[in-house]
Amino acid sequence: MEAGEGVSSATPTEEMNGAGNLMDFLDEPFPDVGTYEDFHTIDWLREKSRDTDRHRKITSKSKESFWELIKSLLDAWSGWVVMLLIGLLSGTLAGVIDLAVDWMTDLKEGVCLSAFWYSHEQCCWTSNETTFDDRDKCPQWQKWAELMTGHAEGAGAYVLNYFLYVLWALLFSFLAVSLVRVFAPYACGSGIPEIKTILSGFIIRGYLGKWTLLIKTVTLVLAVSSGLSLGKEGPLVHVACCCGNLFCSLFSKYSKNEGKRREVLSAAAAAGVSVAFGAPIGGVLFSLEEVSYYFPLKTLWRSFFAALVAAFTLRSINPFGNSRLVLFYVEYHTPWYMAELVPFILLGVFGGLWGTLFIRANIAWCRRRKTTQLGKYPVLEVIAVTGITAVLAFPNPYTRRSTSELISELFNDCGALESSQLCDYINNPNMSRPVDDIPDRPAGPGVYNALWQLALALVFKIVITIFTFGMKIPSGLFIPSMAVGAIAGRIVGIAVEQMAYHHHDWIIFKNWCRPGADCVTPGLYAMVGAAACLGGVTRMTVSLVVIMFELTGGLEYIVPLMAAAVTSKWVADAFGKEGIYESHIQLNGYPYLDVRDEFTHRTLATDVMRPRRNDPPLAVLTQDTTTVEDVEALIKDTDYNGFPVVVSRESERLIGFVQRRDLTLAIKTARQKQDGVVSSSVVYFTEDAPLLPASNPQPLKLRRILNLSPFTVTDHTPMETVVDIFRKLGLRQCLVTRSGRLLGIITKKDVLRHMAQMMNQDPESIMFN
Amino acid sequence: MEAGEGVSSATPTEEMNGAGNLMDFLDEPFPDVGTYEDFHTIDWLREKSRDTDRHRKITSKSKESFWELIKSLLDAWSGWVVMLLIGLLSGTLAGVIDLAVDWMTDLKEGVCLSAFWYSHEQCCWTSNETTFDDRDKCPQWQKWAELMTGHAEGAGAYVLNYFLYVLWALLFSFLAVSLVRVFAPYACGSGIPEIKTILSGFIIRGYLGKWTLLIKTVTLVLAVSSGLSLGKEGPLVHVACCCGNLFCSLFSKYSKNEGKRREVLSAAAAAGVSVAFGAPIGGVLFSLEEVSYYFPLKTLWRSFFAALVAAFTLRSINPFGNSRLVLFYVEYHTPWYMAELVPFILLGVFGGLWGTLFIRANIAWCRRRKTTQLGKYPVLEVIAVTGITAVLAFPNPYTRRSTSELISELFNDCGALESSQLCDYINNPNMSRPVDDIPDRPAGPGVYNALWQLALALVFKIVITIFTFGMKIPSGLFIPSMAVGAIAGRIVGIAVEQMAYHHHDWIIFKNWCRPGADCVTPGLYAMVGAAACLGGVTRMTVSLVVIMFELTGGLEYIVPLMAAAVTSKWVADAFGKEGIYESHIQLNGYPYLDVRDEFTHRTLATDVMRPRRNDPPLAVLTQDTTTVEDVEALIKDTDYNGFPVVVSRESERLIGFVQRRDLTLAIKTARQKQDGVVSSSVVYFTEDAPLLPASNPQPLKLRRILNLSPFTVTDHTPMETVVDIFRKLGLRQCLVTRSGRLLGIITKKDVLRHMAQMMNQDPESIMFN
Repeated sequence: MEAGEGVSSATPTEEMNGAGNLMDFLDEPFPDVGTYEDFHTIDWLREKSRDTDRHRKITSKSKESFWELIKSLLDAWSGWVVMLLIGLLSGTLAGVIDLAVDWMTDLKEGVCLSAFWYSHEQCCWTSNETTFDDRDKCPQWQKWAELMTGHAEGAGAYVLNYFLYVLWALLFSFLAVSLVRVFAPYACGSGIPEIKTILSGFIIRGYLGKWTLLIKTVTLVLAVSSGLSLGKEGPLVHVACCCGNLFCSLFSKYSKNEGKRREVLSAAAAAGVSVAFGAPIGGVLFSLEEVSYYFPLKTLWRSFFAALVAAFTLRSINPFGNSRLVLFYVEYHTPWYMAELVPFILLGVFGGLWGTLFIRANIAWCRRRKTTQLGKYPVLEVIAVTGITAVLAFPNPYTRRSTSELISELFNDCGALESSQLCDYINNPNMSRPVDDIPDRPAGPGVYNALWQLALALVFKIVITIFTFGMKIPSGLFIPSMAVGAIAGRIVGIAVEQMAYHHHDWIIFKNWCRPGADCVTPGLYAMVGAAACLGGVTRMTVSLVVIMFELTGGLEYIVPLMAAAVTSKWVADAFGKEGIYESHIQLNGYPYLDVRDEFTHRTLATDVMRPRRNDPPLAVLTQDTTTVEDVEALIKDTDYNGFPVVVSRESERLIGFVQRRDLTLAIKTARQKQDGVVSSSVVYFTEDAPLLPASNPQPLKLRRILNLSPFTVTDHTPMETVVDIFRKLGLRQCLVTRSGRLLGIITKKDVLRHMAQMMNQDPESIMFN
Repeated sequence: MEAGEGVSSATPTEEMNGAGNLMDFLDEPFPDVGTYEDFHTIDWLREKSRDTDRHRKITSKSKESFWELIKSLLDAWSGWVVMLLIGLLSGTLAGVIDLAVDWMTDLKEGVCLSAFWYSHEQCCWTSNETTFDDRDKCPQWQKWAELMTGHAEGAGAYVLNYFLYVLWALLFSFLAVSLVRVFAPYACGSGIPEIKTILSGFIIRGYLGKWTLLIKTVTLVLAVSSGLSLGKEGPLVHVACCCGNLFCSLFSKYSKNEGKRREVLSAAAAAGVSVAFGAPIGGVLFSLEEVSYYFPLKTLWRSFFAALVAAFTLRSINPFGNSRLVLFYVEYHTPWYMAELVPFILLGVFGGLWGTLFIRANIAWCRRRKTTQLGKYPVLEVIAVTGITAVLAFPNPYTRRSTSELISELFNDCGALESSQLCDYINNPNMSRPVDDIPDRPAGPGVYNALWQLALALVFKIVITIFTFGMKIPSGLFIPSMAVGAIAGRIVGIAVEQMAYHHHDWIIFKNWCRPGADCVTPGLYAMVGAAACLGGVTRMTVSLVVIMFELTGGLEYIVPLMAAAVTSKWVADAFGKEGIYESHIQLNGYPYLDVRDEFTHRTLATDVMRPRRNDPPLAVLTQDTTTVEDVEALIKDTDYNGFPVVVSRESERLIGFVQRRDLTLAIKTARQKQDGVVSSSVVYFTEDAPLLPASNPQPLKLRRILNLSPFTVTDHTPMETVVDIFRKLGLRQCLVTRSGRLLGIITKKDVLRHMAQMMNQDPESIMFN
């Protein structure tokens, strides 16, 4: 008796079924209680059940005393508190990152003499030349060549600036990759594929740890500042999820329950996108559409709250200095016309093709990195790519600056005060110049010059991004994708604009584009192109359009954006269903059961279950005839995560399922206690062990570690139903029966392998479940 | 042999498990194939499985010929086509309804002489007096008294106008209720509770029929025009869903599959809200948060598409004449201040209290209507309520006009050109008058007058709405709720504004409200109040904030709206978890398994399953010993929807589940065919019937109608898991086993009854499953 009790108290997590007195043990420091091993899958049903137990206990206790009532209220509010904290911290971090990136990006070109920690823009704010034209030329800001040699112009100064630009870039990227290598290997990449996998119920220890948070924040700044073709948006989602994980540890409700923890992480992902773009609603939809696996309504509300808090924290820090939440604030003054849908849809096609090209090329390159010598020299790779990027980027003004500044300029409509090369139109001298609503004008030499440079920048960005994404530094994909689309869109936009100006008698322009009218907004084309390219790579649709909508703040442009996003998704889907994140999940072999994949094959559970036809029979335990020795032999000989328990080998009637881990622990504890449990002791899973003669060894009673409600399906169940069940209920395994007899077992890994087989993929690449 | 095959072809829908040759029969006109009976629940797993079969067949056929490939592409695109059609039709209907309501509402007061089909506003557009002040006084528009007696002013004219106002209202509402009574009883109410139930998998024949669509559209116009305290937003969702159902019938993919049909209906609901408010994103989130049950990502994209098309169709019709999508377009010029969060949160508390009061009072009144004589005179009830409403509404200018106009005025900021009573502030004569950014001013007599009238209107609206919602006419709840909140909010807003103006030295105002500053926007308070009240009644949060955000078009005001919406939800939830729609679902006893209710009790499957302890044993069939006679007796004696099939009564090993309907049909067909099947024939569910001596009657082989993969759980499964399974997989029933032996059955109805019992509700009110 005592042995049995001792055992059960050591492994109490398996008894929530029926007995339900799990909570009595949770306060005791058993290291193995409620934890999963690294790279294993969690059992959603079990986590949910544990949380209900916890909740039940708190509710019943709350009636006992006032103090317990307070505690229960605190518990109920802890979710909102965690959201508030996540919002505050991720908003702050995003603000700090923005400021630091601004400063360090400018540091590559020069320094502020009045205060070296000022970025170019901040430096010149304090100067007297406050007009827009003179913004770039304030005396406090000096380029490196000017500072060192005193000459601002000339070939020597250009070469010196060039050299220092490359040097700083190499320094930043070397620091970034070294920090990642030494302190937090998980800090590399965008993090979204891994977060998707974690949210689907996989355990990757340390992926969301404090160390990763710190290193990713620092190296993200370095990586972005180095001028590589990468963005900070994806990594910010990872940073926000790390914040979420950090605050989970404050409340046992979240830290001890992997299911609840994932609810918090979903909300944190929303906060991450919210601060990345200043788009709280888009962030929530991104989390819902792209990242999350289990997204109950409660999480929707909380995500929204976290996203709002994060956005407003960021706004109070005001890193862009314009009181705006958004990264690229634009306001257009003209509507769009039906005929423009044609170029918009063409941009969508371009986005889809770019998405396909990028995913294929990038995955091929990453596979090569994994399988060849290349993967062994990550530092060298980063240095080389940074070197090439910096050397090629400096001569072209559109690639020299940071990618977000580039996008911002491309999105902007040419106002009357705009002085950039892209707005070098030939003005009609007779025309009065209102601030808004400028009619279409013929392009000047600056615009044609800009077009050439943009075309070169486009090719450069397309090629270099393929090699950049996947290196061992934090790297987001949103900004480079958007840059490619924005460049292409702007080029198309200017082309359409000039065509409309010079040929306004053509039938397609006749109806809406009279001379002197402002009919084409090239900035809008850039925005549509950016949406199309981002959509092609990530396959987002609704969240993408909503993010873009939050950037412009006008419902007017939803139709062009939607048309481009949907076209791009269709085109890209025609070449391959998977977005970049799913492709990387597959490349890394994570056990991710995609909600979007529809399984439409005719196989049955019996085709998938183990044992297969020629395999040895299923390893089972009997309820009252197995000895401790037998169990130990079984544990030693097999590596299954658990064993079904049957009435007898003859009847094969299933009574429950026992986890390997619990079994090992129970036997170990029983043997240590020396209650007479020896190798020949019989293990009983029945409710009462029979009274045995004294000569027999003490029985070992293990009913308390037996899961009495294992999930079963019949052998005739279609696999599409089984896949559905695994997906919706988040199972780890499922037993297969026929007429009440146990036939076999299907694990999540079996399901994934079967799906991969059916889709002609490499089934062996799936990581162990 | 032939008998068996004859039977199976008559009832092919049950064989999709394993055999999968279901599709071969679907084209044949069996009236019972794939249909459910009225007021029954659908089986989501089965519907999904059927759709996969259909899809599989089309895919395999598409490789055969070019024509089949085209057909398969058409099939793949049919979803988008349906969305397009829904968007076009529901946008058009919404536009027509808006125009008709405008005209008929004004008809109660007067008529346009130049063209009687013009509303007041349209009538005066064509006039020469185009300034805003003279809008109300154009010669073409004449009030009834003026037209009849020639006197526009005076007591006689007032009484005559009053009388005609009431008369028109009575006429409109009488027409509305009569049309509903005679032609389409389902057209009454808001329809959202029923749509929620239908989307969760319930069948209500005719609820979304063409007749309902037509009558609801017409009577909605009449009901809104009659001036009753009701809105058109909820019914528009119903109308859009009817459109969705209508277009489903064009494609067999949707018309023959109840699961796929519900995907279309979810998207249609989004389109409905989209046109109701001009808020496409809010519509999608409303469908997701409030209405839908099963909402895959594919539906998210399609809903968004439908919502956009609908919104743009409505915009092309342009019923509000302002090129705006939204019902209440507002633009505020001042930011809000942290200190204002206090009144905003107080408005949230008011909203929560109003929500609770409204739900309780309305449900009590509706229950009384159901149980007493009152329910027998719906026409009289409508006439009486309309009479009271019209008589009380006319004297107060804020209740006389249509509720949406009232809300629109309350939301509006007082610009310099505003001439309404609410904007009667005392202007500083020295002040120059810029168009925007007017500083706070002391209130004039008009404002104080308006405050009294608004207070009376508030009480009137609160009381009359309780009696209006639930009558036998189409009636939405959004607009009256928003009106209550907007009135309360505007009153609070003016109070805070005047306090800030007169006491700007108080510590709370000191920091942000210097004299001459524009610090308080009463219109914003009205908007926050409207959000709070709507949130209290419906318990929407995210979709509500997004709708409001789309109305204002600025991220600036999300925090006040969110604060009010969340406070209101918390306050209302403290008094009762259910929103108005859930309460009405419960009142009507629909079998709706709410996704949001968390089931946290400790019961097990064994406590819920039938048979209970003292019941007769479970009605089962055996696989090879039951005779046709026995089966017929069982069908006659019981009313279960289906029967489990076991190996033998002794072993109780489950092999499958057979539907009552299929069994009846199979036996009937076999007997008609006269293949030797008589009462003493043995029914075989096994794969092969044994060879019997010729003297024995022909056996009846029914394996093909047997569902070989019935869903089972063990008796020890916690009910929370069972509830989760029912919810997520959309089951109709589930069998309970212990060690492979069949113990009992749990149906959806049992689950609902058990949940009601656990929550101390009346379990008998649940409609038959």
